[in-house]
Amino acid sequence: MEQRTEIASLGEFGLIEHLTKNIEIQNASTILGVGDDAAVIDHFGKQTVITTDLLLEGIHFDLMYTPLKHLGYKAVVVNLSDIYAMNAQPTQITISIGLSNRISVEALDEFYEGVYIACDKYGVDLIGGDTSSSLKGFVISVTAIGEVAPDQFVKRSTAQKGDLICISGDVGGAYLGLTLMEREKKIYQENPQIQPDLENESYIVGRLLKPEARKDIVEFFEKNKIIPTSMMDISDGISSEVLHLCKASELGCRIYEEKLPLHESTRKAAFKFGLDPTVCALNGGEDYELIFTLKQDDHDKIVLNEEISVIGYMTDIQEGTKLLTKGGNQFDITAQGWNAFKK
Amino acid sequence: MEQRTEIASLGEFGLIEHLTKNIEIQNASTILGVGDDAAVIDHFGKQTVITTDLLLEGIHFDLMYTPLKHLGYKAVVVNLSDIYAMNAQPTQITISIGLSNRISVEALDEFYEGVYIACDKYGVDLIGGDTSSSLKGFVISVTAIGEVAPDQFVKRSTAQKGDLICISGDVGGAYLGLTLMEREKKIYQENPQIQPDLENESYIVGRLLKPEARKDIVEFFEKNKIIPTSMMDISDGISSEVLHLCKASELGCRIYEEKLPLHESTRKAAFKFGLDPTVCALNGGEDYELIFTLKQDDHDKIVLNEEISVIGYMTDIQEGTKLLTKGGNQFDITAQGWNAFKK
Repeated sequence: MEQRTEIASLGEFGLIEHLTKNIEIQNASTILGVGDDAAVIDHFGKQTVITTDLLLEGIHFDLMYTPLKHLGYKAVVVNLSDIYAMNAQPTQITISIGLSNRISVEALDEFYEGVYIACDKYGVDLIGGDTSSSLKGFVISVTAIGEVAPDQFVKRSTAQKGDLICISGDVGGAYLGLTLMEREKKIYQENPQIQPDLENESYIVGRLLKPEARKDIVEFFEKNKIIPTSMMDISDGISSEVLHLCKASELGCRIYEEKLPLHESTRKAAFKFGLDPTVCALNGGEDYELIFTLKQDDHDKIVLNEEISVIGYMTDIQEGTKLLTKGGNQFDITAQGWNAFKK
Repeated sequence: MEQRTEIASLGEFGLIEHLTKNIEIQNASTILGVGDDAAVIDHFGKQTVITTDLLLEGIHFDLMYTPLKHLGYKAVVVNLSDIYAMNAQPTQITISIGLSNRISVEALDEFYEGVYIACDKYGVDLIGGDTSSSLKGFVISVTAIGEVAPDQFVKRSTAQKGDLICISGDVGGAYLGLTLMEREKKIYQENPQIQPDLENESYIVGRLLKPEARKDIVEFFEKNKIIPTSMMDISDGISSEVLHLCKASELGCRIYEEKLPLHESTRKAAFKFGLDPTVCALNGGEDYELIFTLKQDDHDKIVLNEEISVIGYMTDIQEGTKLLTKGGNQFDITAQGWNAFKK
């Protein structure tokens, strides 16, 4: 029989102690972490970068097909992705959680196991947080702090006309992973005897449940003395993000359908579900890749990096935001990405 | 007829723009605030202090008797209180919110009005956050960032034997405010014709609904060259907090019942409800006063400050954690403060 410890039996402070007792500080800048009113960080002439995300059960994740360990990992990674999107290095995170009595200590341990694996992999310290009961649903709030040399951070608003639009990795996979999981959930709910059919789908499922933040790309920039002219991470889909870059920089853009990088598994899954792979690539969210613009002079520096694709370029604002299809047609790009307030 | 705009009609980014369009940056250190993936802060040889709190409807607040403007104000203040408790100055905050479709834009505006009033009063910048829909209930997560000169921050673990135990202001008021509001809610639910009877109770109601963080005390310390030997804020009640200080500092304590500072309104309300004022002072939470320890040599520096009361002193750990009553009895102090995981 599996052990089940009620969170109430530990109490709030017992729970915090239980969850944080194995923390090892990784950064010299972490002067004071968990266990006091606030954490203290020292920065040696660097600038501090802060970002925060709220993840709510039933909105951002479904515990029916999201293992808690993966959820903990992902909750950290999506925040680190925002730090990398500033061309910064994440150094610390705080996590606050609200828990219904449905969640046992063992379940919470699994969640934190994922949190700590992510912290370890990305070299960040968990330095604080807050825990509370919730009337309904699991609530996760993560704040990530990072550092960057003064004036090296990259905003969304500084792209220039003629700059190349680039993205890391490939896109659309997480959306197809979600489509698959939602389909399997529906089948299971209608007939619990049928086992989920996830064979050969590990790539897209992994993109959904265990995304990675592009630490490697930011390190590549540093090594090759590249500073993007603008950058953000892809959480809502390329269409939505490229419109953000254009709006913030007061520019237009031209994107080439044939340049959109799709993984073979993503393409296959799209065909299987009767979806247009290009639409999945443009409007599917949660890929956590980076989208950035580069001066054309920097093209030679990235051409050999297979993890970076040039998908278009920035234009005058009068030229609009355009997609050029493989068939030679031209369409306006519209944001149809995931919108947390629309059904 | 009152206007009601559905949040869905704005969309997430429209909502963020709507909520943040009037922000004015107050601190030179705020290099980049709302509107990018993360915020950037510069510190000129100072140390960064971070704290975070999660507030959930039905657990931490009841919208039936909490005006949204007060809720916004309080959500900020309780975080700033944690920064002051480090002997630091708050400089920035981030706010994430999860909203059910019950909340209109007008209601949210009220909430943010309170947020901005608090930011203005305490001189902090709102630099980021996240907004999302929630399936049920209003979710608020606040992270506050502050700065302090290197090595001037004050922890919980550094009290010494013989140090004076001090608290700011008075205590127990917020608990009696909560008791009153819960009673009025019950009366109203049983008979909606009966109007709430809050006459002469503005002090305790104010302590609950519109607490203040003790910026003035931290400024007083600086002006008078006082550095407490340990400090924290009183969110769960004196008993709970003094036990934290003792445990972290590996000491015992002696607290005098007659020294506990109670406001006259708090005392009257306690008698009205048949409660022991001392129990309210020791175990009532949410006062957001500061509890701190001082070297005995510093006593002269605080004796004229009417906002600071000496309530006892730190002892050897072997002497335990004791309360000396007015009647000359001695009791063990036990934490009966508000516990977010116990019913």
